[in-house]
Amino acid sequence: MEGQYATLKDVAERAGTTAATVSYILNGSTKRYVSEDMRRRVEAAAKELNYVKSSAASSLKGKKRKIIAVLVPQFANQMFTELVLGVERVADRYGYILSICNTFDDPQRELEIIKRMQGQRVDGYIITPSKDGGKNTRQIRKIGVPMVVVDRLLNISEDYFLVSAQNYESTYMAAEYLLKRGHRHIAFIGWKADFGGLERREQAYRTILGEYGVTGEDQIVYNGEFTEESGEELTARALAEHPEITAVLYAYNIQARGGVDFLSRKGIRVGQDLSVLIIGAPDWVQTGNNHFTCVDLNGTGMGIMAAEMLFDIINNDQPIAPYQKVQEATLKEGDSVCQL
Amino acid sequence: MEGQYATLKDVAERAGTTAATVSYILNGSTKRYVSEDMRRRVEAAAKELNYVKSSAASSLKGKKRKIIAVLVPQFANQMFTELVLGVERVADRYGYILSICNTFDDPQRELEIIKRMQGQRVDGYIITPSKDGGKNTRQIRKIGVPMVVVDRLLNISEDYFLVSAQNYESTYMAAEYLLKRGHRHIAFIGWKADFGGLERREQAYRTILGEYGVTGEDQIVYNGEFTEESGEELTARALAEHPEITAVLYAYNIQARGGVDFLSRKGIRVGQDLSVLIIGAPDWVQTGNNHFTCVDLNGTGMGIMAAEMLFDIINNDQPIAPYQKVQEATLKEGDSVCQL
Repeated sequence: MEGQYATLKDVAERAGTTAATVSYILNGSTKRYVSEDMRRRVEAAAKELNYVKSSAASSLKGKKRKIIAVLVPQFANQMFTELVLGVERVADRYGYILSICNTFDDPQRELEIIKRMQGQRVDGYIITPSKDGGKNTRQIRKIGVPMVVVDRLLNISEDYFLVSAQNYESTYMAAEYLLKRGHRHIAFIGWKADFGGLERREQAYRTILGEYGVTGEDQIVYNGEFTEESGEELTARALAEHPEITAVLYAYNIQARGGVDFLSRKGIRVGQDLSVLIIGAPDWVQTGNNHFTCVDLNGTGMGIMAAEMLFDIINNDQPIAPYQKVQEATLKEGDSVCQL
Repeated sequence: MEGQYATLKDVAERAGTTAATVSYILNGSTKRYVSEDMRRRVEAAAKELNYVKSSAASSLKGKKRKIIAVLVPQFANQMFTELVLGVERVADRYGYILSICNTFDDPQRELEIIKRMQGQRVDGYIITPSKDGGKNTRQIRKIGVPMVVVDRLLNISEDYFLVSAQNYESTYMAAEYLLKRGHRHIAFIGWKADFGGLERREQAYRTILGEYGVTGEDQIVYNGEFTEESGEELTARALAEHPEITAVLYAYNIQARGGVDFLSRKGIRVGQDLSVLIIGAPDWVQTGNNHFTCVDLNGTGMGIMAAEMLFDIINNDQPIAPYQKVQEATLKEGDSVCQL
């Protein structure tokens, strides 16, 4: 037995024959002669024991499991549930199922999951890597298991398959939207993530503000943790330390949630007393009474792109040269930004 | 090779020896004599080929994979992402990882996933079943693989391990909240799901309204599909056909989202012109400008309960008799209900 699962040997024992004969019969082979009596005994034994062939069975060697491992860093972040739904849509067309795992952005956990998935012999990986993603994926890359990186960069020198979000353009677009409406004292609230391409969001903010003549200390940047509490705390500090602020640009949706809850509790009227723009578009941003202007990074689109890239690799007999794609972000207007 | 993965045989070939010897050496056995030279050749070959032991390897027979399969019906439904996070918290303590799969509430897909997970020899299942869940889980139940059902009932006669939400009490509590504030013309908007225990929500509405003398045609029930579009459509119809309505009770958060977006577009002021109460508590319900009174079914709590139940089964040498638990729902007041 393998836990509760019956093995080929268990079936053979019950039918009074060898594992080889059982395998032969259950695989429907007709090359050798097998008596009807033996055939019936083996089939009955398999049925009684509820035998299901292990996907690792030697008779299946070379056959794909048709399982893709998807590693996401934060399950509570709607962008990743959207990404997964996008991947699923494509995987479904090819008859593959997904095995979704949450790494919690923890390098050690990420490594453990990858090792476990290797043991399970999954056919491919779609991964949003932690800061040690390069190191953790070394073995699967060396082996050449199909892999596509999504949303964050991998800190390695070689080329690799990548689908990225528009980290730079999204924030540039958002800050520009505010600047065009007369805002000059704009707080940037973000995450201290100096890895994976995410630092491009702050860079875009600083660059375009500079283009509009807002430089030095007039660039108001607060970076913290990737939590709602941090978003609230940074918002409170920004407004207290810089009462001249007319707009807040939240670079991450998780922090934004804490921030807008704070504003609501303080009775600050968004779109009137203070303008708000959010990078990211989880449900709450534009539902019910919420009509926050936001930039949707299009997680579903990223997922679809990544899966199509992965199946391009999987279904190709020859190895293909790594290539990269970018999912375009979309600004979605709401009523949270006023003209100054 | 198994796809890209090197097998024991590949390593043996490269090292110029047998698979048995390779297995012996890599498992660190010291019972037989092996020359240092052979040991070095095998270790070098394994390293060159990036060999990772298949979790199905015979040397690991009897050992657990330490993987739990979690089957959810709708990834876009935040209650299930909460459930998964709850399960993870517990699984992590036991060193298990989760393999999360979305069944899309499709019986055929659900069956396919279960078969695939059986082939992968996962150690246990946590499943929110489709309407054919009883049939689809028959084989794993017969084998006795640890399994806990969550949120929906399984249509079978035998006992089974179950963690349910308070489908009845949640809706009773919600309707009572409205009735106590003077509302008598309350629309119930729900899903035509006549399976799995979900029909208890409408039953609770009808029961308590009856207790308050609201009977027959004064019980205003609209059932549709589990989509935002349906929520919007049913809301529009209810208000058009029953202008006497003073409150709407949304029994499902997905429909509620469509409904409140419709109300917002029509300029209907929730908490003033119309009261709203929602069963379910996804982020958008109480974030920013949204302060909808709701009943939280506590998906995280359900996940924690289900996982603890599963590990109770897994870690027990003896089979244990199935038992059931109920996760309490919590009413969370907002400002969407006015006193009549």
